[in-house]
Amino acid sequence: MASPGKAKRGIPSKSDFNSWYPAIVEIADLVDKRYPIKGMDVWKPYGLTTMTLIDDLARSEMARTGHQEYNFPLLVPGDLLEKENRLVSRLKAAREAGVDPSELRMEDEVPGFEKEVYWVTHGGASELEVPMFLRPTSETPMYTMFSLWVRSHADLPLKTFQIVNTFRYETKQTRSFIRVREIHFFEAHTAHADEADASRQIEEDADMVQRILHDLCLPSIVSQRPVWDTFPGAWFTKAADVVMPNGRTLQVATYHHYRDQWAGAFDLSYEDSDGQTKLCHQTTFGMSERLLGAVVGVHGDDNGLILPPSVAPYQVILMPIAVHADKGVLPAVNELADILTSAGLRVKIDDRDVRPGVKHYDWEIKGAPIRLELGPRDLSEGKCVISLRTGGKEEVPLDGISSTISGALNSLADELRARANTTLVDRIRPLPSIEGIEGNFEFTEQLEVGIVYELAFDGSDSDAEVLEKLTGLTLLGDCDKSFDEPRPCAITGKLTQRRQHVARMY
Amino acid sequence: MASPGKAKRGIPSKSDFNSWYPAIVEIADLVDKRYPIKGMDVWKPYGLTTMTLIDDLARSEMARTGHQEYNFPLLVPGDLLEKENRLVSRLKAAREAGVDPSELRMEDEVPGFEKEVYWVTHGGASELEVPMFLRPTSETPMYTMFSLWVRSHADLPLKTFQIVNTFRYETKQTRSFIRVREIHFFEAHTAHADEADASRQIEEDADMVQRILHDLCLPSIVSQRPVWDTFPGAWFTKAADVVMPNGRTLQVATYHHYRDQWAGAFDLSYEDSDGQTKLCHQTTFGMSERLLGAVVGVHGDDNGLILPPSVAPYQVILMPIAVHADKGVLPAVNELADILTSAGLRVKIDDRDVRPGVKHYDWEIKGAPIRLELGPRDLSEGKCVISLRTGGKEEVPLDGISSTISGALNSLADELRARANTTLVDRIRPLPSIEGIEGNFEFTEQLEVGIVYELAFDGSDSDAEVLEKLTGLTLLGDCDKSFDEPRPCAITGKLTQRRQHVARMY
Repeated sequence: MASPGKAKRGIPSKSDFNSWYPAIVEIADLVDKRYPIKGMDVWKPYGLTTMTLIDDLARSEMARTGHQEYNFPLLVPGDLLEKENRLVSRLKAAREAGVDPSELRMEDEVPGFEKEVYWVTHGGASELEVPMFLRPTSETPMYTMFSLWVRSHADLPLKTFQIVNTFRYETKQTRSFIRVREIHFFEAHTAHADEADASRQIEEDADMVQRILHDLCLPSIVSQRPVWDTFPGAWFTKAADVVMPNGRTLQVATYHHYRDQWAGAFDLSYEDSDGQTKLCHQTTFGMSERLLGAVVGVHGDDNGLILPPSVAPYQVILMPIAVHADKGVLPAVNELADILTSAGLRVKIDDRDVRPGVKHYDWEIKGAPIRLELGPRDLSEGKCVISLRTGGKEEVPLDGISSTISGALNSLADELRARANTTLVDRIRPLPSIEGIEGNFEFTEQLEVGIVYELAFDGSDSDAEVLEKLTGLTLLGDCDKSFDEPRPCAITGKLTQRRQHVARMY
Repeated sequence: MASPGKAKRGIPSKSDFNSWYPAIVEIADLVDKRYPIKGMDVWKPYGLTTMTLIDDLARSEMARTGHQEYNFPLLVPGDLLEKENRLVSRLKAAREAGVDPSELRMEDEVPGFEKEVYWVTHGGASELEVPMFLRPTSETPMYTMFSLWVRSHADLPLKTFQIVNTFRYETKQTRSFIRVREIHFFEAHTAHADEADASRQIEEDADMVQRILHDLCLPSIVSQRPVWDTFPGAWFTKAADVVMPNGRTLQVATYHHYRDQWAGAFDLSYEDSDGQTKLCHQTTFGMSERLLGAVVGVHGDDNGLILPPSVAPYQVILMPIAVHADKGVLPAVNELADILTSAGLRVKIDDRDVRPGVKHYDWEIKGAPIRLELGPRDLSEGKCVISLRTGGKEEVPLDGISSTISGALNSLADELRARANTTLVDRIRPLPSIEGIEGNFEFTEQLEVGIVYELAFDGSDSDAEVLEKLTGLTLLGDCDKSFDEPRPCAITGKLTQRRQHVARMY
């Protein structure tokens, strides 16, 4: 029987993920979607605090690895796109000289990029001489400045990041945190003396992504994107994809090795120790509010959000019980709050004058990891009752409560990781074998909606195109975990250890 | 004799404030002004960290007073300006009915406001159906949502704030932090059940402004702006002005009582406990990166910045001396850093392999409050040497170093307050008496550049106009500290206790 509280809130069953997700982000008070521009939500305090805690994870990684925080202007003069266009020309010339085709992909990308941005054309009533666009990402504004800052090898590596609003003129259907037009964006940009040092940065980025995803209790698939999905001007792009409960993959972090391609376009060079002028090698690393979308989507259940302790605005909700019956309860709860706060925990006392059941429902919806009840009897017995958002309720002694709670939060995080991993593994299946590719309806009928298919793949770009057409899915690229033993490529049949996935991507 | 370090840095003398200020913001590495859009600076890590610490002061006040942090979209649909236009019509009707003229001032303001904003007209290649503007402040986007959120008296007061980038199409000369086109902005917006509760909010705002300015060691003049300088749609506007060393006043905080004027335009109403629908009364409170501009301008000297301890990114710079001569120095400095950090202080070890003199110069420029040297002899004697950025150098025992440093930081803050207050008092003089107003060249010749003039004033709007024309200065409005005894009004001669100031405003 549905409880009245739940029915009132109107949370759809999570088995209907496409109804559950857009409902829960509002019911749990993360955002309000009624702002009159589609894809631009209002961040409410609970959502903003959660996102700020996610940002803090990124800031902490940045501090640990010696990156410094900057803040670049939002507006970019349109004429700076010329530099990107020069990069295109350079890559075109490279193609004509017959070099690595992976260097040629900006050709069609740059004008495309230009199309996706918002343009500022007027200041007040007057038309601007040079129109400006709202940054979609910050390569152009940042590298314009980097070229002024980097003079010699002593200035390298330059490791920067910023957390800012970016914009994308999105024409596809928008979804809170997943596909929005004003994006809460994290971007790290680095410049290095050579390719090898930039490659080391990519390793560091890979490590940081996994550390952050660990804190968020999110397993992921890490792949090197196929050439056609590589970021404009990049040598290669790697990405971490989280698998959402509906089987769609959500790209939550990307890191790109640019070699010296962007540096060439922006005259980003330095004088080496032997007096020679050399181009920098660069990398970028991007994440966004999609991390919050993944947290919501992966961990939540029919009763609401389940927030990992690392980013829960309140890790423990303290509920005083029968405060009118015993005047000692409220002071004891306040004292308990002080003890837990001193131990570095984020706590909130819910002293609203409503039934405990209502409080339980409300904090279930908001995904608070632990609810703690303290009433007159508990107080006299020196204990309290804790309920975990992942299930389970137990009496624990007040003595040593901080370490009891910390231990419970750790167990809860481990359980979230285990649950999320089970879900991930359940969603991944081997791709059925493909025989007689063209018009093989039997093959297509074997594919299930909501599944990520794993396969060995070592084919050409056109083989990949065949694969994508046949499955109706998108190739994520070379997985960082290759097969232990060679297997036949799904398309060409030749043996390979290259593990890849096809999935429906967000 | 100028030291080579200083000469190299090229800091102009602060007596030439208009050269010193724009130079020091770059030399101290707060911002880089070479971004290709005038008035949009790049925040460098040292500047951004300082600004974030200023934001933290505001956030702490907001938490203390029960405001919650939101984040509203940057873009505002142009058609929402209709609501502001309705407000204009309402005020016009009020004037025709012969009511308080202070309610009429939006008439000319709204179209003016519309002119100062940046307009987004295109998404990619396609023209937007409804053009959007970049928020200059957020009344329109916020109140659109407030009207959805507030239903009953139980939803009030609604106390919100956000810290975001706002934009102004500025045509005057731009100056870092003081007059920019992308503004690092703090804005609090509240809705209340009645005028009295909104008035209490204004009192709370006034108190918060003074607490923050106290932490920044900045004295100010608080005035209620004249009607013509009141924010559009406000009943009244109060402002805190800091007096810069060149005698120009810098408005660093404003708070506005809107009564129910904006609420009427945005249908922001609630059901009272007796079932009646009533309009909310509202207030706003705004601050910006101008606070940093004031900190730079008021406290700095010929050698660079002087940062108040509350917002200095590093409160103590630790300088290990002769580390090669004694292997014990570096570990001792590290240990000292741990001790100070545990005491809640922000410290940095400067272990660069350069002469101590260079380090002193660099941290003088950046305004670090305290430099601490520790060498082999100090170590063996259980002491160290601290230098205060405000002058003075002394040996102190390592024993109890945290409380010694905390005490020194407090004294330094007190000294900054005392210095700033002396400067303020020096810059304020009584306005010479005005006789035979028209064509009184003798009067005008008595006025000095760089002085804020204090006067008794109780005249009409046209008297104020005469005063401003005659002095070439701007009236700040009614000071919150009135005269103890009545004095003759500078224009009308009638006795009044109303203290006012005229000054050149930024």
